[in-house]
Amino acid sequence: MILPIFIASLLFASSSFAAVQDFCVGDLNGPEGPAGYSCKKAAKVTVDDFVFSGLGAGGNTSNIIKAAVTPAFSAQFPGVNGLGISMARLDLAAGGVIPMHTHPGASEVLVVVQGSICAGFISSANAVYFKSLKKGDIMVFPQGLLHFQINAGGSPALAFVSFSSPVPGLQILDYALFGNNLPTELIAQTTFLDPATIKKLKGVLGGSG
Amino acid sequence: MILPIFIASLLFASSSFAAVQDFCVGDLNGPEGPAGYSCKKAAKVTVDDFVFSGLGAGGNTSNIIKAAVTPAFSAQFPGVNGLGISMARLDLAAGGVIPMHTHPGASEVLVVVQGSICAGFISSANAVYFKSLKKGDIMVFPQGLLHFQINAGGSPALAFVSFSSPVPGLQILDYALFGNNLPTELIAQTTFLDPATIKKLKGVLGGSG
Amino acid sequence: MILPIFIASLLFASSSFAAVQDFCVGDLNGPEGPAGYSCKKAAKVTVDDFVFSGLGAGGNTSNIIKAAVTPAFSAQFPGVNGLGISMARLDLAAGGVIPMHTHPGASEVLVVVQGSICAGFISSANAVYFKSLKKGDIMVFPQGLLHFQINAGGSPALAFVSFSSPVPGLQILDYALFGNNLPTELIAQTTFLDPATIKKLKGVLGGSG
Amino acid sequence: MILPIFIASLLFASSSFAAVQDFCVGDLNGPEGPAGYSCKKAAKVTVDDFVFSGLGAGGNTSNIIKAAVTPAFSAQFPGVNGLGISMARLDLAAGGVIPMHTHPGASEVLVVVQGSICAGFISSANAVYFKSLKKGDIMVFPQGLLHFQINAGGSPALAFVSFSSPVPGLQILDYALFGNNLPTELIAQTTFLDPATIKKLKGVLGGSG
Amino acid sequence: MILPIFIASLLFASSSFAAVQDFCVGDLNGPEGPAGYSCKKAAKVTVDDFVFSGLGAGGNTSNIIKAAVTPAFSAQFPGVNGLGISMARLDLAAGGVIPMHTHPGASEVLVVVQGSICAGFISSANAVYFKSLKKGDIMVFPQGLLHFQINAGGSPALAFVSFSSPVPGLQILDYALFGNNLPTELIAQTTFLDPATIKKLKGVLGGSG
Amino acid sequence: MILPIFIASLLFASSSFAAVQDFCVGDLNGPEGPAGYSCKKAAKVTVDDFVFSGLGAGGNTSNIIKAAVTPAFSAQFPGVNGLGISMARLDLAAGGVIPMHTHPGASEVLVVVQGSICAGFISSANAVYFKSLKKGDIMVFPQGLLHFQINAGGSPALAFVSFSSPVPGLQILDYALFGNNLPTELIAQTTFLDPATIKKLKGVLGGSG
Repeated sequence: MILPIFIASLLFASSSFAAVQDFCVGDLNGPEGPAGYSCKKAAKVTVDDFVFSGLGAGGNTSNIIKAAVTPAFSAQFPGVNGLGISMARLDLAAGGVIPMHTHPGASEVLVVVQGSICAGFISSANAVYFKSLKKGDIMVFPQGLLHFQINAGGSPALAFVSFSSPVPGLQILDYALFGNNLPTELIAQTTFLDPATIKKLKGVLGGSG
Repeated sequence: MILPIFIASLLFASSSFAAVQDFCVGDLNGPEGPAGYSCKKAAKVTVDDFVFSGLGAGGNTSNIIKAAVTPAFSAQFPGVNGLGISMARLDLAAGGVIPMHTHPGASEVLVVVQGSICAGFISSANAVYFKSLKKGDIMVFPQGLLHFQINAGGSPALAFVSFSSPVPGLQILDYALFGNNLPTELIAQTTFLDPATIKKLKGVLGGSG
Repeated sequence: MILPIFIASLLFASSSFAAVQDFCVGDLNGPEGPAGYSCKKAAKVTVDDFVFSGLGAGGNTSNIIKAAVTPAFSAQFPGVNGLGISMARLDLAAGGVIPMHTHPGASEVLVVVQGSICAGFISSANAVYFKSLKKGDIMVFPQGLLHFQINAGGSPALAFVSFSSPVPGLQILDYALFGNNLPTELIAQTTFLDPATIKKLKGVLGGSG
Repeated sequence: MILPIFIASLLFASSSFAAVQDFCVGDLNGPEGPAGYSCKKAAKVTVDDFVFSGLGAGGNTSNIIKAAVTPAFSAQFPGVNGLGISMARLDLAAGGVIPMHTHPGASEVLVVVQGSICAGFISSANAVYFKSLKKGDIMVFPQGLLHFQINAGGSPALAFVSFSSPVPGLQILDYALFGNNLPTELIAQTTFLDPATIKKLKGVLGGSG
Repeated sequence: MILPIFIASLLFASSSFAAVQDFCVGDLNGPEGPAGYSCKKAAKVTVDDFVFSGLGAGGNTSNIIKAAVTPAFSAQFPGVNGLGISMARLDLAAGGVIPMHTHPGASEVLVVVQGSICAGFISSANAVYFKSLKKGDIMVFPQGLLHFQINAGGSPALAFVSFSSPVPGLQILDYALFGNNLPTELIAQTTFLDPATIKKLKGVLGGSG
Repeated sequence: MILPIFIASLLFASSSFAAVQDFCVGDLNGPEGPAGYSCKKAAKVTVDDFVFSGLGAGGNTSNIIKAAVTPAFSAQFPGVNGLGISMARLDLAAGGVIPMHTHPGASEVLVVVQGSICAGFISSANAVYFKSLKKGDIMVFPQGLLHFQINAGGSPALAFVSFSSPVPGLQILDYALFGNNLPTELIAQTTFLDPATIKKLKGVLGGSG
């Protein structure tokens, strides 16, 4: 059996628009638009653009929350730019906590790889959903809702989380309220916390005002 | 000049799929899917399905926050189902506050119609953006980020807000943390607030646990 | 209670891709793509990028239609770029008319702030939906359909309209037909209007051909 | 070489959600939602659901406009439901005209199969783009803009058009203005046509009021 | 400090549309639409709808390919319905292979949890990208492209994969070609394989024709 | 009747953002993003950007497969950039075959213009759908699934195909497997073909390794 020569002409056509067609590896130095980074030239793309080793080791959990989040969003892993997906790694030492937070731009699914984790979220209807997850369990957190993860055992826990966007965002509640220069008075008025509590937390988190 | 008879046949074709084609007025009793409510039969749709008068009067602001939010999301105003847009009305008496909250599913734009309002939001990069808005000013709040509105004058303020979804959702921070049965211990661990503060706020907001 | 140092490392990560993550304030001088303008560098974004005062005053209604439309689309208000929403202001003096038009790229919701307005639209199935709206009423106009607004009272009317896109577009029927160089013969053939009527309207609207 | 037995277990899993997974042939009797018709059970789907023969013969062009449009939208061809595409057939006898119209929900691409066609559209910026197309030429019409097609030769012309949605909608300008009960006074106010012209066209197109 | 009673009225409003607003847990017995399954009533949703334990144990790899895929798509894990994300578990015994396949509806990201895996994909421009991944490495596979995974070490390998859709689909090349009743002649004509090879593979994979 | 001067001010506003508003003709030399090419300046856009004559003549079918595919994707026809649609032309001489392939990024609809074509696709649930199509028949192929077209008559066949994306991609199975440097061993392991068959096909298709 003999095969087509004709496909060569197709090849020329398709290779010229490969980047947009199948993928758009982010060029972090190029212009950004609402849909993400500019595409790296397809001719310069290699398999290393689609592989990321930064989640191979856990973050440092020698801190007060005994936990670390290591992101592989499009800023860290440009291969996911435009592909509607990204990941992160969660390390929770014994007693570790990923504090209450939201991802403004994505739903999340978490898989427990080691240890056990108590995870939960709160809905717009103010219902609370939380459960202790064991190794191999997965849990989904709908987009934009407050949620948290806590080590539920006495040994280190490890989880991988995936997001429905290469730029899920991350808004940690305490950090948003107490880690910047939002005036204490505005925080007090909009959260009903008393100024003394706010100022104490600002002191710890590096906020001012 | 004489005109086409032919169009009648087009009419028959097009009238049979009118609901999906142009709009999908929500049938609140039909099955819901990820994209919204089922469509009311097109033959039963009238102009009143596209008009909503519920924002004509302000909500009652005789409460502690001296404020009220009146939504016109697809649950209240089924005409916006599937159309990517919805509205709400904000009433702020003197001293009124719309507490810190997020809309998990939509960006928001606000127009001040009466009075003046101090409004702001906090980004994922933890930058704070807030400003005092006067009558006629508009401000946009990107999807899923914590934001707030406070009456910035001595007289009642009125604003209309629009959303980029018929189901923007609404998660009020205090209510999410202190208005349900999320255990005090979990809140303490994930927010760094002390249990006494949490229990006091739960008492006011009707939370338990 | 003491709080996390660890979050600082997250800060460095997230601040580097803040623009794409949460918002993409339009850089009107940068390249445009199908999803909108390029993003202004996040470090240069201030609260003023998210606030627009251009709708604070009405447009000039001392014209033949006694009406004015003032847009706050992404070209005027770059803060909405990529956020799926925008606004405009409608001023209708007594007798004022916003002529028959469409927004090719967005659904619209209108709120009457002053006066009364008769508004309507025509569906693909050729059904007509119109009603006189009073202060506080809202009405939704599905994407791409012909619609209009007319002052229904004897005093000035004011409305704000919101769109499900930062670039809704605006095609005013008379202007599209009679305000450019589309040949009279083509207009006559495709609208069944007689050439004399077309030429008269072209004269008024500045069209030629 | 021997091959996997294991795949059988995958088969059971995948066959149970086949309809949603790859396609969703419309069940015209089931509930509709904003994203389209309900899906026919996958087990009852046959190749005939994906094939449509209704465009094989031209519509009747023995009418005043000497033209016919035959749609294959999801209401006629349920196989395209949910797939983001649909088609129609245009037949233009000598002198035939597809009058000025819009598709509120889709962009369109046209290919001339027989004869020659003068086609054009008008942009939101009021620019006019029209050209005489010969056999084999294709032209694209962006979503929601007024456009038209006219037989540019002395013999019958045939074209196929495709749309970027299974429910593109179709709003024929004359029909929208003069083929229903929209009051003459409202039409006059919003189009600047005089009432006599409007009433004459209503008479021809079957409108009232 | 005393807090708002007013929020109770918001509660009533928001609780009535909770299902659509934040999530849409799939009701596998209700009607399906192009966007997914119908939503389970929000009042009946519990945390167990958002947690899935089916990936806790590996599939049986005592088969010829020495591998197993265990999906958690919306058919298995209805909590992800409408949320734009899903997962699966890959188990590869020593010598195990996930054969060449595509996901027609989603991009994929894979994380190696145990062992080492050689993974790769082929682009539309016919470029080949493959690499040996070690524990902790992640790799992204753009939507719809042919890809594969092979155990690259001498011990069992485990990976979790996430998808940018709750219904990614799965088309295994060999199975699609040789595991059904697609006539041998058609396969031969469209793949250039000789009929004897095809019939042999059909024999193993259970195909006929 | 006299008409509005006011519209001129609208003109200035709208003309400044025309490119993004209605269309985004691709600038093949500008930066690309995940949503497509940068937009050509609106002021330089002419009707010729929206018309493409490259499908007017068939490709050369004097090759082994006796067939040719001529694309009009955004790389060839920049006018469709961002508009969610594109086309291609299929020419099949007697005995011609478009080999098994997928479009990773789009659904396809085909219309037979001349001759007869046997077309089919295979679903994720491994069901086979194929049929002989006659002139005027249309068939839809859901996104990302393997499909093929074969001349079913004794004379040349011609079809036009449309896609639900300006960058549908094209992955021809034989070419992907045997037309590049993917190692024979990897192909053998992931397709169950024997190395001799693979090497023979590589020889014909220009592959190596």
